[in-house]
Amino acid sequence: MILTVTPNVALDITYRVDQLTPGSSHRVRGVQERAGGGGINVARVLHGLGHGTMILGFVGSTTAAALTTDLAQGGLVHELISVEGPTRRSVAVVDSSNGAATLFNEPGPRVPAAIWEDLEAKVAARLPETTALVVSGSLPPDTDDDACARLVRLAVAHGVTVLVDTVGENVLRAAAAGADIVKANSSELLDTTGRSDVTAAAMTLRRRGATAVVASLGEAGMIAWTPGGCWRAAPPARVVGNPTGAGDAATAALVGGAVAGAPWPDRLRDAVALSAAAVLQPTAGSFDMDHYREFVPRIVVEEHHAPGLDR
Amino acid sequence: MILTVTPNVALDITYRVDQLTPGSSHRVRGVQERAGGGGINVARVLHGLGHGTMILGFVGSTTAAALTTDLAQGGLVHELISVEGPTRRSVAVVDSSNGAATLFNEPGPRVPAAIWEDLEAKVAARLPETTALVVSGSLPPDTDDDACARLVRLAVAHGVTVLVDTVGENVLRAAAAGADIVKANSSELLDTTGRSDVTAAAMTLRRRGATAVVASLGEAGMIAWTPGGCWRAAPPARVVGNPTGAGDAATAALVGGAVAGAPWPDRLRDAVALSAAAVLQPTAGSFDMDHYREFVPRIVVEEHHAPGLDR
Repeated sequence: MILTVTPNVALDITYRVDQLTPGSSHRVRGVQERAGGGGINVARVLHGLGHGTMILGFVGSTTAAALTTDLAQGGLVHELISVEGPTRRSVAVVDSSNGAATLFNEPGPRVPAAIWEDLEAKVAARLPETTALVVSGSLPPDTDDDACARLVRLAVAHGVTVLVDTVGENVLRAAAAGADIVKANSSELLDTTGRSDVTAAAMTLRRRGATAVVASLGEAGMIAWTPGGCWRAAPPARVVGNPTGAGDAATAALVGGAVAGAPWPDRLRDAVALSAAAVLQPTAGSFDMDHYREFVPRIVVEEHHAPGLDR
Repeated sequence: MILTVTPNVALDITYRVDQLTPGSSHRVRGVQERAGGGGINVARVLHGLGHGTMILGFVGSTTAAALTTDLAQGGLVHELISVEGPTRRSVAVVDSSNGAATLFNEPGPRVPAAIWEDLEAKVAARLPETTALVVSGSLPPDTDDDACARLVRLAVAHGVTVLVDTVGENVLRAAAAGADIVKANSSELLDTTGRSDVTAAAMTLRRRGATAVVASLGEAGMIAWTPGGCWRAAPPARVVGNPTGAGDAATAALVGGAVAGAPWPDRLRDAVALSAAAVLQPTAGSFDMDHYREFVPRIVVEEHHAPGLDR
């Protein structure tokens, strides 16, 4: 079973409008709502690929029912811990004229330390039956800098592969705690490390203690810096759509590949293909299996030789 | 007491973002939520002006609690009829760099004919203690074309002043039923009547049976076509802010003036001043009394002589 933790669960709302014009009023032609946030989107994709998954995380009490109903309808096993207040909303406005999505992400409720401890206890209880742990998505406001590192240490102590995809000091500490894979998009990596290029940022995280670092470069694909080498994968063509959840689809491929012991170039190919297939879907966490299969052989993976690269 | 009907109640959500950039992701810096929709915003402003008000309308059952709690906190008397599904949301994204608001309006739930009949019974029961009836805001999907006209006929039969502010065939039939005031913004008037200029549109509605027609011209102010003459009022300067609810503030002034028997030029001056004061507030339905008082003497009201104008 793959365990995913979503510290800041979202109610993902997707609005379809004819054309987005700042400063004007829009009739929403279609509304879709589902449970989202990093770990939930990752679990949804993993479930779609046939993996057993378990979702843990925090959910705002006033809107918990809508979220858990949606997860149950998707056949997703979950155990969400209730916190006071509404679950954060993430509104994606999809412009029908060009397919582009514009996102508005609420900050979400604060999570008291005692409730983080409940989560750690739940993770620890599940680790004996877990093949990989994913901690993914934004963090609640005022999250303790060591919160993700504590989860990483639990996984490391049980010999469970752990992937972390979030931002800030929590990522630096998760790397230092020995995370197997740190994944982020390039701008998040630069923000987190304070470095000015992604290779330097990846090296910083590996020197801290992360075994591998994977950067998403948006339309340009992904790079992985690993103990066995550095690879870069590029999608076949520009894919336009809703990028919400594309990074989470990549995470699902990376963790699925890790559990299967697949070579890194194959993990990266899968990650870029699944990410591109996810962008074509209007809602986060879904992908079309045919698009995915069609993309896989078209992804170009090359060994990446960056100047001064320290393996 | 002034009775306001909101056929399509909204949960008004206001997001503050640093700068709205289509196609990108935004952190929401501030979230505000309140009960909204035409009649509710009108009642909120009337309540702020010291009028006794009563809110009637339909509310989606799954989010009714949040709305009624907000109304109760605002001291607003209400009796909302529950319909299946969620209340529609109206999301206003306010760009902190320029103050402009971009709106996304969900369609809202359908309202069965039997539930419209409940509303009519509630309106009829309240009319003996009512000085004016306002029917304002968007209509639920698939609303019967005669729904507003039936409410107008009830008011007319009781000698109660009735103002209608909505769109489409319902407005044409409300005019034919003898509405005292039909109010709309200029593009709504053109859409409703199929005419190409606002004077022609207003004349169409008056010929159908509306006693007076008031058009909001956005930043250019308002025009009223009435049995006693035609007036135009212009604001002192361009006012930038959140236009949600500005039209409803104008409606509140118009109905307050009608109840007080004020002359039309004064009603129009108040409507433009209150509307400008409402634009300066970040959320719909609120206004600053000082701004309002400061604007009133600066509004220019002129008699309007349109060529071929039929009084």
